[in-house]
Amino acid sequence: MVGASKSGNGSGPIRYGMVGGGQGAFIGGVHRIAARMDGDFQLVAGALSSNPERAKASAAEIGLDPERSYASFAEMAKAEAKRPDGIEAVAIVTPNNIHFPAAKAFLEAGIHVICDKPLTATLAEAKKLAALVEKTGKVFVLTHNYTGYPMIRQAREMVAKGQLGDIRIVQAEYPQDWLTEDLAATGQKQASWRGDPKQSGAGGAAGDIGTHAYNLARFVSGLELDSLSADLDAFVPGRLLDDNVNVMLRFKGGAKGMIWASQVAPGHENGLKLRVYGSKGGIEWVQADPNYLWYTPFGAAKQLITRGGVGAGPAAARVTRVPSGHPEGYLEGFANIYQEAARAIRAARKKGGKPARDVIYPTVQDGVEGVAFIEACVRSSKKNAAWTKL
Amino acid sequence: MVGASKSGNGSGPIRYGMVGGGQGAFIGGVHRIAARMDGDFQLVAGALSSNPERAKASAAEIGLDPERSYASFAEMAKAEAKRPDGIEAVAIVTPNNIHFPAAKAFLEAGIHVICDKPLTATLAEAKKLAALVEKTGKVFVLTHNYTGYPMIRQAREMVAKGQLGDIRIVQAEYPQDWLTEDLAATGQKQASWRGDPKQSGAGGAAGDIGTHAYNLARFVSGLELDSLSADLDAFVPGRLLDDNVNVMLRFKGGAKGMIWASQVAPGHENGLKLRVYGSKGGIEWVQADPNYLWYTPFGAAKQLITRGGVGAGPAAARVTRVPSGHPEGYLEGFANIYQEAARAIRAARKKGGKPARDVIYPTVQDGVEGVAFIEACVRSSKKNAAWTKL
Amino acid sequence: MVGASKSGNGSGPIRYGMVGGGQGAFIGGVHRIAARMDGDFQLVAGALSSNPERAKASAAEIGLDPERSYASFAEMAKAEAKRPDGIEAVAIVTPNNIHFPAAKAFLEAGIHVICDKPLTATLAEAKKLAALVEKTGKVFVLTHNYTGYPMIRQAREMVAKGQLGDIRIVQAEYPQDWLTEDLAATGQKQASWRGDPKQSGAGGAAGDIGTHAYNLARFVSGLELDSLSADLDAFVPGRLLDDNVNVMLRFKGGAKGMIWASQVAPGHENGLKLRVYGSKGGIEWVQADPNYLWYTPFGAAKQLITRGGVGAGPAAARVTRVPSGHPEGYLEGFANIYQEAARAIRAARKKGGKPARDVIYPTVQDGVEGVAFIEACVRSSKKNAAWTKL
Amino acid sequence: MVGASKSGNGSGPIRYGMVGGGQGAFIGGVHRIAARMDGDFQLVAGALSSNPERAKASAAEIGLDPERSYASFAEMAKAEAKRPDGIEAVAIVTPNNIHFPAAKAFLEAGIHVICDKPLTATLAEAKKLAALVEKTGKVFVLTHNYTGYPMIRQAREMVAKGQLGDIRIVQAEYPQDWLTEDLAATGQKQASWRGDPKQSGAGGAAGDIGTHAYNLARFVSGLELDSLSADLDAFVPGRLLDDNVNVMLRFKGGAKGMIWASQVAPGHENGLKLRVYGSKGGIEWVQADPNYLWYTPFGAAKQLITRGGVGAGPAAARVTRVPSGHPEGYLEGFANIYQEAARAIRAARKKGGKPARDVIYPTVQDGVEGVAFIEACVRSSKKNAAWTKL
Repeated sequence: MVGASKSGNGSGPIRYGMVGGGQGAFIGGVHRIAARMDGDFQLVAGALSSNPERAKASAAEIGLDPERSYASFAEMAKAEAKRPDGIEAVAIVTPNNIHFPAAKAFLEAGIHVICDKPLTATLAEAKKLAALVEKTGKVFVLTHNYTGYPMIRQAREMVAKGQLGDIRIVQAEYPQDWLTEDLAATGQKQASWRGDPKQSGAGGAAGDIGTHAYNLARFVSGLELDSLSADLDAFVPGRLLDDNVNVMLRFKGGAKGMIWASQVAPGHENGLKLRVYGSKGGIEWVQADPNYLWYTPFGAAKQLITRGGVGAGPAAARVTRVPSGHPEGYLEGFANIYQEAARAIRAARKKGGKPARDVIYPTVQDGVEGVAFIEACVRSSKKNAAWTKL
Repeated sequence: MVGASKSGNGSGPIRYGMVGGGQGAFIGGVHRIAARMDGDFQLVAGALSSNPERAKASAAEIGLDPERSYASFAEMAKAEAKRPDGIEAVAIVTPNNIHFPAAKAFLEAGIHVICDKPLTATLAEAKKLAALVEKTGKVFVLTHNYTGYPMIRQAREMVAKGQLGDIRIVQAEYPQDWLTEDLAATGQKQASWRGDPKQSGAGGAAGDIGTHAYNLARFVSGLELDSLSADLDAFVPGRLLDDNVNVMLRFKGGAKGMIWASQVAPGHENGLKLRVYGSKGGIEWVQADPNYLWYTPFGAAKQLITRGGVGAGPAAARVTRVPSGHPEGYLEGFANIYQEAARAIRAARKKGGKPARDVIYPTVQDGVEGVAFIEACVRSSKKNAAWTKL
Repeated sequence: MVGASKSGNGSGPIRYGMVGGGQGAFIGGVHRIAARMDGDFQLVAGALSSNPERAKASAAEIGLDPERSYASFAEMAKAEAKRPDGIEAVAIVTPNNIHFPAAKAFLEAGIHVICDKPLTATLAEAKKLAALVEKTGKVFVLTHNYTGYPMIRQAREMVAKGQLGDIRIVQAEYPQDWLTEDLAATGQKQASWRGDPKQSGAGGAAGDIGTHAYNLARFVSGLELDSLSADLDAFVPGRLLDDNVNVMLRFKGGAKGMIWASQVAPGHENGLKLRVYGSKGGIEWVQADPNYLWYTPFGAAKQLITRGGVGAGPAAARVTRVPSGHPEGYLEGFANIYQEAARAIRAARKKGGKPARDVIYPTVQDGVEGVAFIEACVRSSKKNAAWTKL
Repeated sequence: MVGASKSGNGSGPIRYGMVGGGQGAFIGGVHRIAARMDGDFQLVAGALSSNPERAKASAAEIGLDPERSYASFAEMAKAEAKRPDGIEAVAIVTPNNIHFPAAKAFLEAGIHVICDKPLTATLAEAKKLAALVEKTGKVFVLTHNYTGYPMIRQAREMVAKGQLGDIRIVQAEYPQDWLTEDLAATGQKQASWRGDPKQSGAGGAAGDIGTHAYNLARFVSGLELDSLSADLDAFVPGRLLDDNVNVMLRFKGGAKGMIWASQVAPGHENGLKLRVYGSKGGIEWVQADPNYLWYTPFGAAKQLITRGGVGAGPAAARVTRVPSGHPEGYLEGFANIYQEAARAIRAARKKGGKPARDVIYPTVQDGVEGVAFIEACVRSSKKNAAWTKL
């Protein structure tokens, strides 16, 4: 029996398809590994590229049944919906502008959706999509994958339990350096579509990584944003979208924060970092070293909590695979989102079924919030960093 | 098509079975994830426990076909060898004393073997097993998983290319703390069998982790041992096997080294660390932070090489899944060994087929060397740390 | 011969006096150690406290000649100016509001001034003081001590030489946690005066530490500020001055930056950190680990430059006392400012003498800039973080 | 009043002289800064070099009165003993072989001695010196300076209070890289005398740094050595003394340990590190980052104790100058030894006076133990690393 599920509910893996993720793509391969890791999913169909040749070649490369390699997502949604063994879920891993039409097609075909971030290329689309999810009642999981890291779950749990006291300060940053020079000019696929407003939407760094930082800040702190003031730049000549983002945040209730996201900060590979401070203590987490969480209660010695180690609580344990000292990484964190998705989808197999209370994943509403953040950043920056509500 | 292989050779995943790895086990689950991660393997049979009830329950839990859940490895080897869709490979993840009889049974049944370390409980068995592998010509992969880490491959490549000059010093250590108190007395399964000479063999910490450190030192430095002087202790009263190991090493050609392995060093979760120094430079790698490799050329600034980043060469790139800054971990390193195994097994599908030259995995000979190391440590320690050849 | 000077110009140590720094003070003791470290200074007079009893007791405690322990700085300036062996320089280490009148008294008495930061309590005073320094021609050294760290000198040199290319981004932060609770309410001397606008001026965290961060950012990047947008808070109820400062920066020429300064960030003891990124590379420096400088040239491996080690250039070497691996710290960095002051004062002993070109210390103009920064932060924050010029 | 003492006992600074420490020397300058830092000492005489020209030039450079710059230590001891304002103490900072005759001369002249390590070039001399100290009753302070670091005092206090339980394991290492190539061949002064058995004694790395590691291990753990097994190498051709030292340790009571000291480990500048593990917890300290102490109680979260921060106790506080987050370094640690020496010497000014109980410094007995360690290493290594008692 292939792909035996870790959770072992005997009901078999979830058949899923993929839109995007063909040759030259980055995130599609990540989704496939994440889906495979715990044996909960089975990839059986795909529309892997908008280029028919590439779609075909990509399907062959990953061993898809040629009959279920489709030329378009529309065709795939239609065909799979008719099959008795059709896909139960789809993973959408295309450029941002395709998220909305693809998700719409599958939701309307009665298929659950796992979608990469940001949710859509525009806020208008995002809101429509949220309404559609509501209407269809299908499971919709947005892969803000960093929320899947065990120590992020730990941090969130500590904040929720009041271990940090009243939250006063949130500092999030996400520097990278891969766009320090004009990579799109070389034809590199990732740089090209991510730098194209038609495919990406209004935000460059704001959309690609700023939205991750903002999502993580909300996820851990539990705070809601009141307004933001953003100063965006495109330092590389000719670049159409921002590559550096400075934001000041005002949260409801009085907490303050900052976000810095950059694609032009040499030395930073994928430097997502979150720090939260309250009246009783602070926490600090760095994505590149994700198995550690600093906890600094005011007036006591600094503590380093490790994934799987003493001090890590049940929220982290739920999504931990191996003992402390055996580092988990990006793929495990990503797979945790897939694991949560599997729980939700399995629950939905039963009429009216709901996932257990402890199932946590980024929803379409989180996606709406994220696109609103991107557009608010752009709007604020155009108005000389005026304070802007989402 | 389920479990599409990353390498995509179109020839389908490898059917494999598992011996050991039932409920309460640790490493079996790790093997299963590693086997799943790249879609190269398909788990179809198992003898998951020597306890029939537990075997059955474990098989159900992971979704194995009940017909192919066997009460013993002997039965499994026999039955699977007869099936047209029988397993091509077996993963042996039992206590050490079962490695030999199980491996023997499968090799003789014409089935490739992936076996956890140490190779066997005694050197005599190890040598017999090596002879059997030679005789049968089957693929035999020993999961010294730390050799699968990209930055370890990088370090090895740098040494081989002479970037460190003539190697003078090798410092390896592997401290843990999980046996600081008498855990076996609580009935904990891992502590119980690992502390039992009948199941583990002559070495405690020496066998469980010292052998990993020694293997890694050899793998990276390319040196061969001349002799060692070992001082072993069991600090926890009543413990039958060593829990702390101090070793001095003399390599052929004059290099020197030390190994420290401990299960009673509070604060260390899984502290494997390797440092190698030559006439031109040094390297340092820490398992808990495996995406980094310090390279310190003499007379130049210290360099931090990152997995996927600038400075990482082809040997690391071969076993890298995601870009720099997206941390890979223990499971990815382990899965790299499975990936190499898949390459070797696929090559062996063709009569006389050999894997490509760049396929690297720990062999049965490495296993013989490892058991020889364990027994030499024990022998040396009994003779007041006398210098001892393997 | 006491206090033999390291620089050994045979002209004897510089006689100096101190204003402030009596019992219960913090920074006065630091100045005294810094002055002593290289034997360039000799403490011979003091007006150590505005409280006569405390002044007397403090003078006795540190061994001052009772005759030269004065009840006020005014008296001291007058008396010392008349003595043939009177002080050549004074160190002013009082609360901020005393800086101006004290500095004025000594400058007018023909005595060089070493003054703690911020320069004064108001920008108006700062400008008057700058004019007075210009008029009197005396040496005026502001102890923005962090500019004395060797690796900060190194960073500055690298930027100046173009190793980072065109500077695009400056990120400075200075979090602390000592005011997480209402420490002033306990009567703690440092918290009391620093939280009192009459003694401190308009800025709390902005004035005490934000100005350090801003000074360091300018010192290393060589950039000039165009305008800033600041959002200040006082999170602890009843606090009159800000304890958390978020600032966005726009530099002339187009570079952008952020400053975060906080006194309510649990876990941070004295977390000054500076990062600068340009079109060719980045640098990162952390005050708590001051002997290291990360240099990350785009497209090459990350380098860790160490004080005294390979890669550290002449600007760092000038202010380095001990070899690499022998850590220098806060006091050595502070003493480097005193060493530079000594060079300037010794040069001034000769009529028309000027210090050598490589003598670098924060000047009264830097102090004006710093107070302007503080007041601009306060002004901006009051106008809803409007962009404000200094 | 010059050099006002921090401890402020009103009794004035201690007049001292220096033997060695002329131009080209390293450690002499360090002693002078350490002596100056707290104002407890006043340098008034010197025999700075065995070369009369260099002695004279060196004295002039540091501003010594030419009359009190002597051509030899013998002359200096004699002359100073006669002066009413003669030196009360001498700092001996020569190559090792001069320690004994110089110390002897000053002790016999009734002058207290502060002497660099190792104590002497031979164990025979060391024992004679210890007897002489006993006989004369003078203060004798050996500058094993690393015992002056606050977090080392903290570690020692924690062990003594039983926070680690019964000590089982001690791991000390002291790698450097400055002798990776044949530096002595270039005429470099430090490399030349340290590599010359006539000036250094029997040990190379063992004597220069191994003895520091051993001293620190004893100081913190409180353990006494039973025996050692050492394997020494000189990797650089033509080198007469060892440059790499592997040692296994057996302590009385059953604890075990290892020391690795090396001068040929590229990337290590001054990598002294100490780890101690007991039945209840562990500690880890790294000299290059001396303000941090890891404390890892078994079964609780890892704690990072910082100098001056929460968790640092009275033993550390006694030798702490500035608040947490303001890093202290090598010179402050060294100065702490001088501060302790000052306390002892001041106590001795009163007939029969003894320093307070909490005054701690390395004694002549520690020095005997250190030289015994060096000679035992050499002896053991010559006998194929046989177990050897000191």
